[in-house]
Amino acid sequence: MPLDPRDALRLALAPRSIAVIGASDNANKIGGRPLAYLARFGYQGTVYPINPTRPEVQGLRCFPSLQSLPNVPDVVIVAVAGDMAVAAVDECGEAGVALCIVMSSGFGETDPDGKAREQAMAARARARGMRIVGPNSQGLANFGNGAVASFSTMFTEVAPADGPVGIISQSGAMSVIPYGLLRARGIGVRHSHATGNDCDVTVCELATVVAEDPGLKLLLLYLEGIPDPWNLAEAARVARARNLPIVALKSGRSAAGQEAAQSHTGALANEDRTVDAFLADHGIWRVQNMVEMVDATQLYLKGWKPRGRRLVAISNSGAVCVLTADAASAANMPLEPLSAATQTELRTILPGFATTTNPVDITAALLSNSRLFGGILPPIARDPAADAFMIGIAVAGAGYDVEAFANDTASFAAETGKPIVVAAPQLSVSDRFKALDLPVYPTEGEAVRALGQFLSHAELQQAATVRNAPVPSKPRVAGPSVMLDEVASLALLAEHGVSVVKHSLCTSQVDAVAAFQALGDQPVVVKGCTSDASHKSELGLVRVGLNSADAVAAAYNQMNDAARTAGVTLSGVIVAEMVKGRRELMIGARLDPVFGPVVLVGDGGKYVEAMPDAQVLLPPFDAAHVESALRRLRIAPLLDGVRGEPPLDVAAFCESVVAVGRLMSDDAAGITQLDINPVIVGARGEGCVAVDAVIFREVAL
Amino acid sequence: MPLDPRDALRLALAPRSIAVIGASDNANKIGGRPLAYLARFGYQGTVYPINPTRPEVQGLRCFPSLQSLPNVPDVVIVAVAGDMAVAAVDECGEAGVALCIVMSSGFGETDPDGKAREQAMAARARARGMRIVGPNSQGLANFGNGAVASFSTMFTEVAPADGPVGIISQSGAMSVIPYGLLRARGIGVRHSHATGNDCDVTVCELATVVAEDPGLKLLLLYLEGIPDPWNLAEAARVARARNLPIVALKSGRSAAGQEAAQSHTGALANEDRTVDAFLADHGIWRVQNMVEMVDATQLYLKGWKPRGRRLVAISNSGAVCVLTADAASAANMPLEPLSAATQTELRTILPGFATTTNPVDITAALLSNSRLFGGILPPIARDPAADAFMIGIAVAGAGYDVEAFANDTASFAAETGKPIVVAAPQLSVSDRFKALDLPVYPTEGEAVRALGQFLSHAELQQAATVRNAPVPSKPRVAGPSVMLDEVASLALLAEHGVSVVKHSLCTSQVDAVAAFQALGDQPVVVKGCTSDASHKSELGLVRVGLNSADAVAAAYNQMNDAARTAGVTLSGVIVAEMVKGRRELMIGARLDPVFGPVVLVGDGGKYVEAMPDAQVLLPPFDAAHVESALRRLRIAPLLDGVRGEPPLDVAAFCESVVAVGRLMSDDAAGITQLDINPVIVGARGEGCVAVDAVIFREVAL
Repeated sequence: MPLDPRDALRLALAPRSIAVIGASDNANKIGGRPLAYLARFGYQGTVYPINPTRPEVQGLRCFPSLQSLPNVPDVVIVAVAGDMAVAAVDECGEAGVALCIVMSSGFGETDPDGKAREQAMAARARARGMRIVGPNSQGLANFGNGAVASFSTMFTEVAPADGPVGIISQSGAMSVIPYGLLRARGIGVRHSHATGNDCDVTVCELATVVAEDPGLKLLLLYLEGIPDPWNLAEAARVARARNLPIVALKSGRSAAGQEAAQSHTGALANEDRTVDAFLADHGIWRVQNMVEMVDATQLYLKGWKPRGRRLVAISNSGAVCVLTADAASAANMPLEPLSAATQTELRTILPGFATTTNPVDITAALLSNSRLFGGILPPIARDPAADAFMIGIAVAGAGYDVEAFANDTASFAAETGKPIVVAAPQLSVSDRFKALDLPVYPTEGEAVRALGQFLSHAELQQAATVRNAPVPSKPRVAGPSVMLDEVASLALLAEHGVSVVKHSLCTSQVDAVAAFQALGDQPVVVKGCTSDASHKSELGLVRVGLNSADAVAAAYNQMNDAARTAGVTLSGVIVAEMVKGRRELMIGARLDPVFGPVVLVGDGGKYVEAMPDAQVLLPPFDAAHVESALRRLRIAPLLDGVRGEPPLDVAAFCESVVAVGRLMSDDAAGITQLDINPVIVGARGEGCVAVDAVIFREVAL
Repeated sequence: MPLDPRDALRLALAPRSIAVIGASDNANKIGGRPLAYLARFGYQGTVYPINPTRPEVQGLRCFPSLQSLPNVPDVVIVAVAGDMAVAAVDECGEAGVALCIVMSSGFGETDPDGKAREQAMAARARARGMRIVGPNSQGLANFGNGAVASFSTMFTEVAPADGPVGIISQSGAMSVIPYGLLRARGIGVRHSHATGNDCDVTVCELATVVAEDPGLKLLLLYLEGIPDPWNLAEAARVARARNLPIVALKSGRSAAGQEAAQSHTGALANEDRTVDAFLADHGIWRVQNMVEMVDATQLYLKGWKPRGRRLVAISNSGAVCVLTADAASAANMPLEPLSAATQTELRTILPGFATTTNPVDITAALLSNSRLFGGILPPIARDPAADAFMIGIAVAGAGYDVEAFANDTASFAAETGKPIVVAAPQLSVSDRFKALDLPVYPTEGEAVRALGQFLSHAELQQAATVRNAPVPSKPRVAGPSVMLDEVASLALLAEHGVSVVKHSLCTSQVDAVAAFQALGDQPVVVKGCTSDASHKSELGLVRVGLNSADAVAAAYNQMNDAARTAGVTLSGVIVAEMVKGRRELMIGARLDPVFGPVVLVGDGGKYVEAMPDAQVLLPPFDAAHVESALRRLRIAPLLDGVRGEPPLDVAAFCESVVAVGRLMSDDAAGITQLDINPVIVGARGEGCVAVDAVIFREVAL
């Protein structure tokens, strides 16, 4: 009976036996490297080289075929080319192999034919209950048990050491570049997996299983696309359950990057900010580049539980203190003054011209008295002003007791149990701190940035907005759709709980005047109602502030004239209440090709495209999520009222946004796009109303 | 006869003789290190140790006193403490020494007494025509001639090599940290000067002389304050005349940083964006941290003359291509496709699944054929799509011909003469490229960022807005000033060429109605005119859209009532034309404590404080400067008109801003602060008018 699909992945990380089809004696060939690595890195399971032309490969008995093996191997590496690879995979499926790692290239990465071939191969494997990693995969490497089924050159160049970091990537290069950078810092890496073309097992699905490894303290992902957000959400859930942080480098932020990703891995282009929102919703920290991906690793491995962001900085250079303060401000880490008692104590130790507030500037006096450093640490350790520390040893060497600085810092770190980073540009200094396993960076800027990431990620992992609900495994895709006119759009919104402006659709002058009077002879807005155009004001289809029956009657005719001129058909003329509010906001919604329904909230009005100020929300979400998104807008200060204005009715607006989120999540409603602009928001207690809306809805085919 | 003050600085960089008062045999003491360094680093001039207690110091004849020397030395290092230091400096002044480097501490950095002592000492030296570097200076180090009059520990720890980089800093640490980081990359540094308390010679003044060194290709400055912007402007002028780029790390960007800088070097706090504007105006590139300060150095030293920002990227990893595209987009470097001819040629060389547009993805096929790399470079070199290149060798080693990659890249770089950066995370790979003097970074992100900085700085150096005019050496400081009321403010603006709204100051209801009628019975604005409050609408002192004599009469009374309620005195009631325009902008002006007059332009209206969108201009400036500032605003898209709107009358607005710049530069006018908000700007050709203004003017004492 075939294994549960996830169990097959678990087995692939710790197989009892591995066969290599296309086994080679040459350790620099694809079929040779895995055999060499399995031997070199201490794999304890059984290894079966398969090659009909040789009796022995790399000192192991070689078998002519899969059938000739004494047992069915758990994992088979396929390292033969082209059609032979397909045949080998099919054979494995028939034999009951749990998982094939297909290193052979020439599939989906080559051309549409190759894509079709790998899809068919995957379908056959699926039918037989076998999983496939690849094709075009560099392989899986688990240094925890020596199961290094990979041909990466990196493991020849940089010696491995088992450790608490896991790396998963489609790209071979990105599975090992972080490995190399971390190993160069002396950090051990257990997992380094490259999934290749992802015809079956994806990066995200593999992550759901790797995240279970109790030895891991950090999981790094390199992604160009997220074809299966549900698996990433599941990996995040597994990781969160054991406080395992996930850091993701999702490339293709820019249009140029998305284009390159499209030719590299066929990643589907989508709006990058939806990726930001999705990752944040699942507590995954998104980094922008490889430096950010690896630079905070030392901090993640410490097991610190940060309680806040307040930084205390200490240096023997006033300039390092100033630069640290700048970097801390940029990273939103306040420097609060040390307590009066601490300062008094520091003044008994430091010379009069030293600074004892925070940052603490020991000054160059450290050159004549190396014990100043160790002297000031105990009182600072006792001070409540610090959630984290930065120690900058600007320059030291001859004349300084650098060993004592490092030892004192290590004791201080152990005593406080709080996050600490060290900046030391000289190798002779930083090496002493590294030897004591303290996180050292060349400059204060790098140290503070890494610390800021670590603290922010810890906050994100604890955030109330992090999701626990599973993500649907098939996001709705936009089918052919039609635009509803304004009246139909408003009606749909009203039906789903969005409060809309009082209005009537009029098909005669008499109707229009009656509608004006029914609204209480107050100023009204008159608009042409059409499903032919979404931007009406450019076409002369909007008149505002009409306050007489004559004006409304005249406007009725103007609308029809303007529609003729513009060549659009009107379903009638809208007479609507002229709503006075305090601010025009907007609510939008789209179907993202990767994540499905996406809701936008932001500043509204005429310039939403020219000067966008919007935030993304992925349904399902509640009012608290919406408010947290609103607080990230540029216009956030206006929510509470400025210059004597009352606060806006944020609660009412949030309710409308939640209603739109529900509507978009309702597949049956078939909404593919929605723009409510403006939503006029009144002062707190006055509510909000949608005064214009354009909705696209799927047509039944 | 004393030297010209600048000649004394020139001499200090290449002195014929150096004496050390407080000479010590111990090379780890302040009075010992300079002697050891002068000997070790090959200083060819005469060295005079001075110490009355010893006949010989560090193998040199030691003299009991300054008077006992056979000649008056050009430079004297003062390394004795406290009062002895002051006495020694005075003695040097009397003896006709050109310049004293005062290493002794306990002056301005300690307390106000110390500050007074160093100022008095500087005044006496000035009277005698002697210059002082320091006190509290780590010293001057010129590795071009061995004149290393410094006690920095760094020069013991990291061996120097003369080279094309100069570093100047008040802080000792920041004069040598970049030295250390650059030396670790094999880059030679000629100048490493730390000026200490700057009681006489400042960083900026020293820069005017260092910038003259024809051996320099890059000048790095660390600044916490810019007490003498005129010297920095002069240094920039000198540097620009010989295409010497200046990169400045000016710390104190944040409030916390400014506070720390205040206790470290007594730097005057000011608005950080004025620093941005000043440095940009003088072609100086401002970096944010030490990494940015040193990371592009290799590029500056190449002598490249970049012609644009279009990047062509090449890698053996598709993921590196994607990340490079993202980084290039962030750095505003477009990736244009290679020409069809080049692509055809590349397709004859690369496998079918490689990407030949741009980025060029060689793919892992490079492992089986190392010659692919060298093969594709010549056609790419001939392609016109590139202004600069990024080469990413993601992973290499066993099985790859890394030496050939490096050699081919070096030939390619020489052939194209265009800027190129290499990213290689493995040391074994990057070392090969470094050996050929190619600029190598661990990751594509760092490589592209450094390249972007280099290209942007080259553009800035050529920018039309870079200043050539000298900067006045005493910026006007704000004295006691009074607020003018709106009518007086508008009158002053009108007098100086700013067009203002039609308005009358009325002191009776009859006047007010007459004013309304004189404006043609059009809707008007009625406002209370007062110099007691600047925000009038909160006090009920503004009524808009009044379109009848009765309404104006009633508003007249309301203004007086509201003024009584608010407790402000009215000089009358303003009846002003109700101006219709297309956008409300603002013009502000201040006296910056460092740079003097500063003009702000930006979006106007009620929310200028809550949602600021403004840019800084330092007078003198012309309309082109103003327009370039406007183009950096968030609202820039509106200037040209969006959604069918006509473009704004930018020219008219720029003219008003230039008028404000002139007014602020006119010391006699005595304006200390000015806020014109809103300036209502019409469509092109319709002009703009200031409709409200608050001006503060100095009072004659």
